[in-house]
Amino acid sequence: MMPDIPELKAGAGQIVDKVHYLPLRVYYEDTDVGGIVYYANYLKFMERGRSDMLRLAGVDQTAMMQDQDNGMVFAVRHCTVDYLKPARFEDEIMVRTRLAGVTAATLTMGQEIWRGDECLTVASVKAAVVGRNGRPCRLPPQISHILKALIF
Amino acid sequence: MMPDIPELKAGAGQIVDKVHYLPLRVYYEDTDVGGIVYYANYLKFMERGRSDMLRLAGVDQTAMMQDQDNGMVFAVRHCTVDYLKPARFEDEIMVRTRLAGVTAATLTMGQEIWRGDECLTVASVKAAVVGRNGRPCRLPPQISHILKALIF
Amino acid sequence: MMPDIPELKAGAGQIVDKVHYLPLRVYYEDTDVGGIVYYANYLKFMERGRSDMLRLAGVDQTAMMQDQDNGMVFAVRHCTVDYLKPARFEDEIMVRTRLAGVTAATLTMGQEIWRGDECLTVASVKAAVVGRNGRPCRLPPQISHILKALIF
Amino acid sequence: MMPDIPELKAGAGQIVDKVHYLPLRVYYEDTDVGGIVYYANYLKFMERGRSDMLRLAGVDQTAMMQDQDNGMVFAVRHCTVDYLKPARFEDEIMVRTRLAGVTAATLTMGQEIWRGDECLTVASVKAAVVGRNGRPCRLPPQISHILKALIF
Repeated sequence: MMPDIPELKAGAGQIVDKVHYLPLRVYYEDTDVGGIVYYANYLKFMERGRSDMLRLAGVDQTAMMQDQDNGMVFAVRHCTVDYLKPARFEDEIMVRTRLAGVTAATLTMGQEIWRGDECLTVASVKAAVVGRNGRPCRLPPQISHILKALIF
Repeated sequence: MMPDIPELKAGAGQIVDKVHYLPLRVYYEDTDVGGIVYYANYLKFMERGRSDMLRLAGVDQTAMMQDQDNGMVFAVRHCTVDYLKPARFEDEIMVRTRLAGVTAATLTMGQEIWRGDECLTVASVKAAVVGRNGRPCRLPPQISHILKALIF
Repeated sequence: MMPDIPELKAGAGQIVDKVHYLPLRVYYEDTDVGGIVYYANYLKFMERGRSDMLRLAGVDQTAMMQDQDNGMVFAVRHCTVDYLKPARFEDEIMVRTRLAGVTAATLTMGQEIWRGDECLTVASVKAAVVGRNGRPCRLPPQISHILKALIF
Repeated sequence: MMPDIPELKAGAGQIVDKVHYLPLRVYYEDTDVGGIVYYANYLKFMERGRSDMLRLAGVDQTAMMQDQDNGMVFAVRHCTVDYLKPARFEDEIMVRTRLAGVTAATLTMGQEIWRGDECLTVASVKAAVVGRNGRPCRLPPQISHILKALIF
């Protein structure tokens, strides 16, 4: 039986002035033989930021996915990433996410990864809502409403 | 338009005397800051070996998964891994897989990873067939038949 | 320039009565087409638990690695994993780590992953200290001292 | 002792008219709960294509890395990815890589992922050569020579 550790919750970061901040630690799994974080793994950090921002804002991706009639997921359509400086093993980094735009079926986010006051990575990510068949669909009105209030 | 490169097919290895052999290359993505393959990534190599062996033997995991009434997947229940020597960036390695046993709802595989004539990793993996609800189910008879013929 | 968000730190969990607890969230990156966490990714969760426990206890893996004369890393030699129930997208899980034993050159940890009061995964992981050349070496005395005080 | 399976070699694809083609299979590890390949994992496929193209062309990344005086690695500085259609579990895909440009310290590659005659992903990746200290350095002349002959 696991003892109660009530104060221990998985971190989800925080939204301050429409910007989401997620602090993360770099672990072995994130690094490669070059001694730095592997370039694809920054995209994992950024997805954690987007998912936590959406959850904190009230968008329930699990419910969206499991909707019997109309299951849908966010699928990334485009991303651009500039790698300015590398993150390293055991670094504490901060993922910054802001919503740059929302259309009927897409959202575009600006994301950065910082270590202290150094900006390591800058990215722009556009995601579309797609149904189980892979076809694009419109954002449900209540989600569109939440997202529009978050536009930076 | 992509030109025809007819002879280029994704490698799936080969079954020789009931043993499946899958040659693989170690890429950046597989390594970590310690300069060797990250311990969880050997499990990815081994899963590629199991999936390719099943496909070559005639087990269609995609069809199993998409069956309308009775979708099912293999889920790993247990694994034991001994890491004898590390694999490194750009190594050519060989995943060896043999089926050690089959029951009504599980299969157990013995797997090894070699580099030339050095054995790097030895594993035993037990997988069960589970339905969409996560509950164990029986192997379909035609799959059970295929698997029993492969037991080493 | 990034605003100060002083209270936001990457979670490292907590050691209570010699047991380390690390709460984690399951993200897209962790799941697979079967709808559950991919079997190798539980090993990533467990490595995060071990690294955070060591750091909290005062073992500086980065310093160990960068020691000019005597750089060393922990390398996993053996692991056994029982997968009892699957974790799913967006689950909050807890990684529990305890040190089961320490020798001159190895440490053995017992680890579990829980979701609420359900135990999902039970593992035993043995790691050895190895030098840059890959050869086993002895634990530095001050690290050995720290670890022995943590034995459960 | 492993039997000789001399014809089994890890696939490295092929360079035809300065374009490198690498066929790959999609495995469980590559997919996510949405049923498609996770967006960061396409970058792993593309890195395999770049590494295999370089190796086939005669660029030895391991030797570059291990050079005693002057160890260096390729580090990605920028990437742009358009995700047109998703790849799915067990798909056979083809990574197409061509070298678009070379400067004294960088190379830029155009990459695409195809499934049959459908183009799934289009990317542009710029990498720089960096030394152990993380500072940019010039491409060694013999590598620069090889790369210039590959420019599309």
